[in-house]
Amino acid sequence: MSRRNLSPNELFDAACAGDRAALARVLSLLERGDAVAREVGRLAYKKSGNGYTVGITGAPGAGKSTLTSSLIKHLRQQQLEIAVLAIDPSSPFTGGAILGDRVRMQDHATDPGVFIRSMATRGHLGGLSLSTPEAIRMLDAVGREWILVETVGVGQVEVEIAGKADTTVVVLNPGWGDSVQANKAGLMEIADIFVINKADRKGVEETRRDIEQMLELSDLPHEAWRPPIIATIGNTGEGVPSLWDAVLEHRRAIETTGELKSRRDFRLREELREIVARRLEQRAREICTGEVWDGLQTQVLDKTLDPWSAADEMLRGVGA
Amino acid sequence: MSRRNLSPNELFDAACAGDRAALARVLSLLERGDAVAREVGRLAYKKSGNGYTVGITGAPGAGKSTLTSSLIKHLRQQQLEIAVLAIDPSSPFTGGAILGDRVRMQDHATDPGVFIRSMATRGHLGGLSLSTPEAIRMLDAVGREWILVETVGVGQVEVEIAGKADTTVVVLNPGWGDSVQANKAGLMEIADIFVINKADRKGVEETRRDIEQMLELSDLPHEAWRPPIIATIGNTGEGVPSLWDAVLEHRRAIETTGELKSRRDFRLREELREIVARRLEQRAREICTGEVWDGLQTQVLDKTLDPWSAADEMLRGVGA
Repeated sequence: MSRRNLSPNELFDAACAGDRAALARVLSLLERGDAVAREVGRLAYKKSGNGYTVGITGAPGAGKSTLTSSLIKHLRQQQLEIAVLAIDPSSPFTGGAILGDRVRMQDHATDPGVFIRSMATRGHLGGLSLSTPEAIRMLDAVGREWILVETVGVGQVEVEIAGKADTTVVVLNPGWGDSVQANKAGLMEIADIFVINKADRKGVEETRRDIEQMLELSDLPHEAWRPPIIATIGNTGEGVPSLWDAVLEHRRAIETTGELKSRRDFRLREELREIVARRLEQRAREICTGEVWDGLQTQVLDKTLDPWSAADEMLRGVGA
Repeated sequence: MSRRNLSPNELFDAACAGDRAALARVLSLLERGDAVAREVGRLAYKKSGNGYTVGITGAPGAGKSTLTSSLIKHLRQQQLEIAVLAIDPSSPFTGGAILGDRVRMQDHATDPGVFIRSMATRGHLGGLSLSTPEAIRMLDAVGREWILVETVGVGQVEVEIAGKADTTVVVLNPGWGDSVQANKAGLMEIADIFVINKADRKGVEETRRDIEQMLELSDLPHEAWRPPIIATIGNTGEGVPSLWDAVLEHRRAIETTGELKSRRDFRLREELREIVARRLEQRAREICTGEVWDGLQTQVLDKTLDPWSAADEMLRGVGA
């Protein structure tokens, strides 16, 4: 029977039973953002809560994909069932995804214990911040206990998404200066664990001191947890077991203190707020069409009306 | 008389008469986003339209600030009055700006023909896409004929902002691979002029071929204008006159074809749409408080309600 003929419910059940193609298909349904997406989203929502997410972020070229690949290998040696969500930034204009590094993960493509999914930005900036938690929830609901979320880049969106994981790993390199210059503070704030990858290059100790110093200065609320700094070599897998131990230790720590629950509650509240905002945006797009809108636009272009007064005019109907 | 006692109108007039402190102050008023901001925004809107904006973007470390500084020197030798808007990304969490590179522009701090202003992201992602055009309009309204807009980083937000200039310069380096890997397509689409800065390093010709090849492949609507590729050395100023000639040539080209007007109209329409969206967001924040909201949140956290149904519930009142 073709999976195309299955109802969302049946697809979801098949995915829960371990059907990878069905899982791929419900994830695609989720991305459509329509009524069917809501339906499968609700199913996933009810069943989720057992998976644990590990975010991995860092500058392009830091070797995240190779490191993630080594990490997958380490986890598979322990028979852990995992899912990897690889978030690719794309042009804000075309919506196309750049999937270059994904090829490094092809090693695991035939392993049924590993499910890898790429997600692209798809034009709208806010899109990923809603579609990522939904995809994570789906992977969780179908029974993947460990979900690795890898984001490419250290822009605000990428850092924000990575920071929404239960444990966030920030990957740097020896001599990390320029590549993350633009968003050092953002990375410092989300990191639960630092990795100095490509540790066979020189400058590891300087980088370690650099991170330690920034942690000292940063005044972050790390009373309960001080982010460890792990040196790794992604290509050989060196340091990867230590990285994983650090993840497990962090998980234990935030489970014990109750921070895991408060993090998750906070994230869910944020998501709810964003859903409301997105619906209103949708409403805005509906408002911004038609004759009245065209007329106001013309007035603005002619400078007989300023943009803010035009917006007032448009919004009179919706109490905003 | 202290400028603090001046009304927004008086401050704006003082800024138009060349009072730099008054200009700095109206720009700060604009950033407040309140009723006074609207008032000065309206004044600027009416008087704007003569300035020309040049966007400069590229990966951190590409030498944009040094290049901009050399460009300023070149323009000042021709007695042009200019303004520089330096857009700094910041942590999505703290709102603090990273102003490191700005010091390189201090050379021009005492020159009355150069007005330099830094703007920070201030937490909210959408913020800069509205505050940047407003600041540009103000600099234009007070009589600055050339406005350079420099953005740090090649994330989506930065690229989007740089792409909103009349002429956009994308700064790369020889061997540019990794640093812009994440957003090559975005950079290709916005570039009116490419600069290979630090051209005293090796690899200039390879980079030039690389860019040319991407231009060939990119299928962009450059019938009327093929982005030139200029080699520069920011430190010595080499190549900067050629860069400026290219800017002038691009300006002439888009003025002649009418593309300048259609670009500006398009930008203004986008801005209007964004103002509407922002107002609705504000409304969403108002909705997302209070007892009903708290009650719905608790239900979502308890999994007795899913987030989408909760959003439906909240939005019933505003027709969204």
